[in-house]
Amino acid sequence: MSTKKWVYLFEEVEEAEKYVGGNWEDVRALLGGKGANLADMTRAGLPVPPGFTVTTEACNAYLAAGNQFPEGMWEQELEALQKIEEKTGKKFGDPTRPLLVSCRSGAKFSMPGMMDTVLNIGLTDEVVEGMAKLTGDARFAYDSYRRLIQMFGSVVMGIPDEPFEDVLAEARQKAGVKTDAELNAEQWKEVVEIFKKIFKEHTGRDFPQDPIEQIRLATEAVFKSWNGKRAVDYRNAAGIPHDLGTAVNIVTMVFGNMGNTSGTGVAFTRDPSTGEKKIFGEYLINAQGEDVVAGIRNTQPISAMEKELPEAYAQFLEICEKLEKHYKEMQDVEFTIEQGKLWMLQTRDGKRTARAAIKIAVDMANEGLITREQAVLRVSPEQVDTLLHPQFDLEAKKAATAEGKLLAKGVNASPGAAVGVVAFDADLAEKWGKEEGKAVIMVRPFTRPDDVHGMLAAKGILTSEGGATSHAAVVARQFGVPCVVGASDIVIDLEKRQMTAHGVTVKEGEWVSIDGSTGEAFVGQIPTVETRLEEQKDLMTLLSWADEFRRLQIWANADYPQDAQRARNYGAQGIGLCRTEHMFFEEERLPFVQKMILAKSEEERQEALDALLPYQREDFAGLFRVMTGLPVIIRLIDPPLHEFLPSHDEVFERVITKRVKGETEGLKEDEELLAAIESMHESNPMMGLRGVRLSIVLPGIVKMQVRAIFEAACQVKKEGLEPKPEVMIPLTGHVNELKVIQPQLEEVAKQVMKEQGVEVEYKFGTMIEIPRAAVTAAEIAGVAEFFSFGTNDLTQMTFGYSRDDAEAGFLLKYVEDGILPKNPFQTLDVDGVGQLMKMAVENGRKTRPDLEVGICGEHGGDPASIAFCHSINQNYVSCSPFRVPIARLAAAQAALKEKGFSAK
Amino acid sequence: MSTKKWVYLFEEVEEAEKYVGGNWEDVRALLGGKGANLADMTRAGLPVPPGFTVTTEACNAYLAAGNQFPEGMWEQELEALQKIEEKTGKKFGDPTRPLLVSCRSGAKFSMPGMMDTVLNIGLTDEVVEGMAKLTGDARFAYDSYRRLIQMFGSVVMGIPDEPFEDVLAEARQKAGVKTDAELNAEQWKEVVEIFKKIFKEHTGRDFPQDPIEQIRLATEAVFKSWNGKRAVDYRNAAGIPHDLGTAVNIVTMVFGNMGNTSGTGVAFTRDPSTGEKKIFGEYLINAQGEDVVAGIRNTQPISAMEKELPEAYAQFLEICEKLEKHYKEMQDVEFTIEQGKLWMLQTRDGKRTARAAIKIAVDMANEGLITREQAVLRVSPEQVDTLLHPQFDLEAKKAATAEGKLLAKGVNASPGAAVGVVAFDADLAEKWGKEEGKAVIMVRPFTRPDDVHGMLAAKGILTSEGGATSHAAVVARQFGVPCVVGASDIVIDLEKRQMTAHGVTVKEGEWVSIDGSTGEAFVGQIPTVETRLEEQKDLMTLLSWADEFRRLQIWANADYPQDAQRARNYGAQGIGLCRTEHMFFEEERLPFVQKMILAKSEEERQEALDALLPYQREDFAGLFRVMTGLPVIIRLIDPPLHEFLPSHDEVFERVITKRVKGETEGLKEDEELLAAIESMHESNPMMGLRGVRLSIVLPGIVKMQVRAIFEAACQVKKEGLEPKPEVMIPLTGHVNELKVIQPQLEEVAKQVMKEQGVEVEYKFGTMIEIPRAAVTAAEIAGVAEFFSFGTNDLTQMTFGYSRDDAEAGFLLKYVEDGILPKNPFQTLDVDGVGQLMKMAVENGRKTRPDLEVGICGEHGGDPASIAFCHSINQNYVSCSPFRVPIARLAAAQAALKEKGFSAK
Repeated sequence: MSTKKWVYLFEEVEEAEKYVGGNWEDVRALLGGKGANLADMTRAGLPVPPGFTVTTEACNAYLAAGNQFPEGMWEQELEALQKIEEKTGKKFGDPTRPLLVSCRSGAKFSMPGMMDTVLNIGLTDEVVEGMAKLTGDARFAYDSYRRLIQMFGSVVMGIPDEPFEDVLAEARQKAGVKTDAELNAEQWKEVVEIFKKIFKEHTGRDFPQDPIEQIRLATEAVFKSWNGKRAVDYRNAAGIPHDLGTAVNIVTMVFGNMGNTSGTGVAFTRDPSTGEKKIFGEYLINAQGEDVVAGIRNTQPISAMEKELPEAYAQFLEICEKLEKHYKEMQDVEFTIEQGKLWMLQTRDGKRTARAAIKIAVDMANEGLITREQAVLRVSPEQVDTLLHPQFDLEAKKAATAEGKLLAKGVNASPGAAVGVVAFDADLAEKWGKEEGKAVIMVRPFTRPDDVHGMLAAKGILTSEGGATSHAAVVARQFGVPCVVGASDIVIDLEKRQMTAHGVTVKEGEWVSIDGSTGEAFVGQIPTVETRLEEQKDLMTLLSWADEFRRLQIWANADYPQDAQRARNYGAQGIGLCRTEHMFFEEERLPFVQKMILAKSEEERQEALDALLPYQREDFAGLFRVMTGLPVIIRLIDPPLHEFLPSHDEVFERVITKRVKGETEGLKEDEELLAAIESMHESNPMMGLRGVRLSIVLPGIVKMQVRAIFEAACQVKKEGLEPKPEVMIPLTGHVNELKVIQPQLEEVAKQVMKEQGVEVEYKFGTMIEIPRAAVTAAEIAGVAEFFSFGTNDLTQMTFGYSRDDAEAGFLLKYVEDGILPKNPFQTLDVDGVGQLMKMAVENGRKTRPDLEVGICGEHGGDPASIAFCHSINQNYVSCSPFRVPIARLAAAQAALKEKGFSAK
Repeated sequence: MSTKKWVYLFEEVEEAEKYVGGNWEDVRALLGGKGANLADMTRAGLPVPPGFTVTTEACNAYLAAGNQFPEGMWEQELEALQKIEEKTGKKFGDPTRPLLVSCRSGAKFSMPGMMDTVLNIGLTDEVVEGMAKLTGDARFAYDSYRRLIQMFGSVVMGIPDEPFEDVLAEARQKAGVKTDAELNAEQWKEVVEIFKKIFKEHTGRDFPQDPIEQIRLATEAVFKSWNGKRAVDYRNAAGIPHDLGTAVNIVTMVFGNMGNTSGTGVAFTRDPSTGEKKIFGEYLINAQGEDVVAGIRNTQPISAMEKELPEAYAQFLEICEKLEKHYKEMQDVEFTIEQGKLWMLQTRDGKRTARAAIKIAVDMANEGLITREQAVLRVSPEQVDTLLHPQFDLEAKKAATAEGKLLAKGVNASPGAAVGVVAFDADLAEKWGKEEGKAVIMVRPFTRPDDVHGMLAAKGILTSEGGATSHAAVVARQFGVPCVVGASDIVIDLEKRQMTAHGVTVKEGEWVSIDGSTGEAFVGQIPTVETRLEEQKDLMTLLSWADEFRRLQIWANADYPQDAQRARNYGAQGIGLCRTEHMFFEEERLPFVQKMILAKSEEERQEALDALLPYQREDFAGLFRVMTGLPVIIRLIDPPLHEFLPSHDEVFERVITKRVKGETEGLKEDEELLAAIESMHESNPMMGLRGVRLSIVLPGIVKMQVRAIFEAACQVKKEGLEPKPEVMIPLTGHVNELKVIQPQLEEVAKQVMKEQGVEVEYKFGTMIEIPRAAVTAAEIAGVAEFFSFGTNDLTQMTFGYSRDDAEAGFLLKYVEDGILPKNPFQTLDVDGVGQLMKMAVENGRKTRPDLEVGICGEHGGDPASIAFCHSINQNYVSCSPFRVPIARLAAAQAALKEKGFSAK
């Protein structure tokens, strides 16, 4: 009976591959990501210091047996250590040619909470002296030794850091220096002695003077750290299985600080910030890896190595090219040159900016290194998003944070950076922004529809209440205005015209900077960097490839011609949602709207509607012109009518004040207005008289709208263009609602076309945003020619969450606590809302096989949600014009993944 | 090739039965209900005047052929007429022995809009004279003839009634009399002449002097009436298929007005108002059927016939018994005695009061006439409901309506009649009702939780706003208080302490009467009739039978021991919902509740909770005592906390008034309170921070409640009783909510049991009232041990209706217009909400096969909804204690129907 193989030398990668059945992902599972890559480099003939990996299976067996090494494991590890001694010609515990190693954990996925690295294993009282002689650098030797004792003590034996740090502080004080780097050999020697005492005090045993014992304890510590609290919590949160286990990597130490033919560095195979194809990195002569990272000494650009260490540099360039070809990805490598000899210590896919990610993907596809499918899968939709909004200069933002200028954090409601002076109301924001050309950040507790003029004039919006789909957030995303909402630490005092958070007060007119991508608000001005789609040639290329792969169409939500134009420029194939009510809030129209609402007779109401008709007709004509040849879905009026009236409290206060003061002027009018507002009051307006319900009760409004739509369409068709109106009825819950209203509206449409002598292609359909509509989709599809999922409301009602209230309240806690994996208003809740959608598509198409199905909720621009929409065979997703490029990419990725393509 | 049989003589019923395959329902479909029963009586040897039926198939064939009699039909009808002539020895058109017949439509179901009866067919100018001679009553003969012309003209030929009526009015005026009955033979003769002219003017032809032609035209008219607008509309509304067709019944006329050995009457085989087993009816000597109905002459009780026409009476009694035995139902019969000979003209199941229905069903089962299953199916749940509430004396109500005392109509929110003086606020209602012992009707625009003390002290509740599940309605039903809500014609002026509707003003303290079963409100006092379950022996018997048949358990919703006691007396097998928050509103507790809400520190909050604990413990102990041995589901706190604070507008007005007046006293406190209320404001509180969400944010409240529940349970167990608490977590939408809170609560439960040294049987479960919970029931059942459908909220969210707003607004219009078949808050929406419930039961039981499933929404007491709950295999329904008997019956009926039992 042969014992299982628990330990693989780096050069035994083929055996590992054979054992798992050939799949590289399984090798990574067995050896961990770090170990697998070191083994892989070794196989490719790259200079990797000798070492080996104890498998994740050993870890699992150890933990399962109640912290007992499985049979044969330790013997195999000892054998591997011996092989390393043979390979390096060095020997553990031998002061004349000491072998030192590092010990690191390495799971399939890197995760926080796992055991930190322990370096310099192998140093003992005896060996350290040998090292000092051998290197002629006693300071280095004792510094290394004290590091081992401290790391080993804290990481392996669980001694707190404080006693060690106290000793260091005392030593610095005693020596009269500020940094550890200034301590000399003698001083380190003293520290070593005290460290050893601390070790004994805390563990009851001496610091092990046997290198093999050090390795055994370190191996066990790595295994145990798999079940440490932080690691378990992280896996729970990230959804990583608990049975993966971690591997242990033991690697020969190499030293870059052995004189001027030694050195160490880190590098990227391409420029991680621009994507340019050239080695990018930094290095230091005669230094250790830590020194590069710590920034104590000034590093040199990697190109400088060409002069200083030409041979090693040439070898390094060659290795980098080899690595890129091998991994087909830009690599982030660590290397050390020990006395002229180059050693590769790590390689992994390099992190990069959004811009670089796109350029690298496109370049690599053009170089033939990867396929276009891979290129499309390599760039995340979020990276595309980043490119489309101005961003803060990262360094400047870091500095501002360090200086305590971070005012508050809220919900990242609409991406992009914005800088401006604070205005606390919409009128002022409009005045400063539009008339005086100032950069304004509009700050409000929350916004209402009649704040929109100010929001449009502002560079950014900041609210202290509301969530990611509050009015402020929705409008901001719609118009691409950076926005932070629900920054609840901010207390806004509208009377004093100032806001306060954490003791800092900002007055109206003072500068603030907000980052809508991260949800941060800063005091003062932070410099920004701007970008444009048209200028992003690589992105344009990538998106054109994406368009070839996707099945979903991408439409946009746009209310005005200029938004539609932007959407079309960005590649939108239709308008999925034009919200007609936004038009009602415009200055010259609102009086007619209010007259219509407060009308005391049908005649009065019709008069007001007649006055609104020409405005609406022009709105729609503009849209049809821009979108000629493409479908335009116009949603009939949706909100409850009281939204168009002044707020209750405002009028109530006026009435009470006048009554108490005994003033009669305007009192009667105010009282009447108050009575009207009160009569329209609903305890839960979200679920009240709006949408199709309003249309059935007051059909005049929607008949006017349909007349305007078809008059506009006929007009535009006469101009030689091709309008394709689709009329959408909101909030349907029962098929009978459609049966009542839709024929009346179609009648109006036909009447108009007859009057105009023009035939226009059109559809009538409905939003699916009420759970009951989803459940009874089969019936509804018998009348509606298209479905558009209104996932904002559908999410509200399926969860029973009022979004504004929830996002300002318990919902954030729910997401933080992991009760909800994500904010369901940002990413579709696939298990709940998604199941209703799936049901609706399937049952709807049973009744009407060619049913057009889309989504016009906020989720239409969210990549994960787009993937779900793809999976249930929707025809399109519709999103904000600014998110069209993101959606194009996300849709392509969903299609490619479905077909089994992957980024690698 | 033999022609199809289109016409059946009454004695040919066997042939008809054979043709349709033996099923009596199919005979009714072929011959219509009326024809089938006449044929059936004929077969049973009862004296039915000779006649025949033209089948519904003939009708369908006629209509399908574009109004052409099918081949052979007319010939068969002529043949049948000839058989009648033979049987009666009379002859059509023969003035010496004239045969007269009636022609009536008769479909499977009786429906409005079908052709009315035409009597006296066979009269002509010649025959009428013969009739006059034969009967010696010229007045009767000409009166009959003019009736034929008028009926034939209007019913068969479509002449409007007005010209005929004008002539009658003129004739009365000319003769100087008030009623038609006072006109003599000569005067009728003149009328006949003018009627014939009118007939010719409108139809262009003479009134047919051929009796056969009269029959042909009448037959066609019956057929055509099947497609008349009223009939089609009715069938659409009632869901009756359009392809049933109507039959035509031709029956020999018999005359009860041929002297003192003739007579006519109507009778029930049992007393239709008490159910007593004795013939009940009235009759008139020497009269026609119309005279009995018209009430022109005073009728005699049927028993009087024993003396006057003993032979006929004895035969009649025998026939009645035969009919009951045959139809196994109380019969409503019409008869005529023509010169000593008894003729049965109609028999059908008799209408009866609720009390009679129950007595008859129980008696008939005891008599062995029907089975107990049939008895249980014979009584409608609504009839049981009627018996359990005081009712207005029907005659008195009619009179009040006639006198214009009907103030307004609203929604019938809680059944029963109530009379009292109006009180416009809860405090006054309590003062008058509780302290002064007055009968009070509390009248409010709408009610809030802090009105409950007044509602409980009132005999009835009337609101001008809100719908069938508004706060007022729910509380009223819960406590069995008669209630009318949403009587929107009433304008309440709380300052003037009066209400006005339709110009009538009622001041505070004046008497009103409300009928919660019909939704009516009257001015003044209407006498009532009271009943009690315990006294209803027949009902108790019927319900005990029902209990043997049902599969569903019946539980009750009860918050207080006295309600639970009533529920148990009524047969409840558990408490399905105890709403703990009602307890929070009680006078001595509310201050602690408010302190808890407004607490500025955790300590302050805990202090308030500690003060509430003993109250809650006593509440629960009381419930457990009453319900010993039966499960008691206690729902943890559900409403948003701001419901326990004063209303925003009240405090707002106070603050503004003080500010304007410059008063400072109490201003700061009021401002702080206002700020607290405002900070808790939610735009849609229904979907806000309540239920399990509140528990997760503020776990202290529910931990206190669980502690109180288990301390109470342990205490009661120590008393030797058997408490069975089931803790219900409301508003769950995601399984993770339960995963977070349930273990914390179980921990408290275990801790208490440990402290008390007592083990109590318990369950933890959840309400399913959020659509997402229904969709993800499989996951939720992994944690919850029971589901209880909260169909009020589930209906709100599935439809997206805020019930208070909707029922006061568009929902009533929706039901009136037929957009919704029924108010979904009263009767479960099976197609939408029901589908989610079905899904939840099926998926929940997949995870947990023994999952206990019930319903605690208002629908738990609605018979149609109970049938649905049965069909999806719920374990129980829970309803108001007052509806427990109804639910017991409805559950049994659902079970019996499922097994194929029917009432007949």
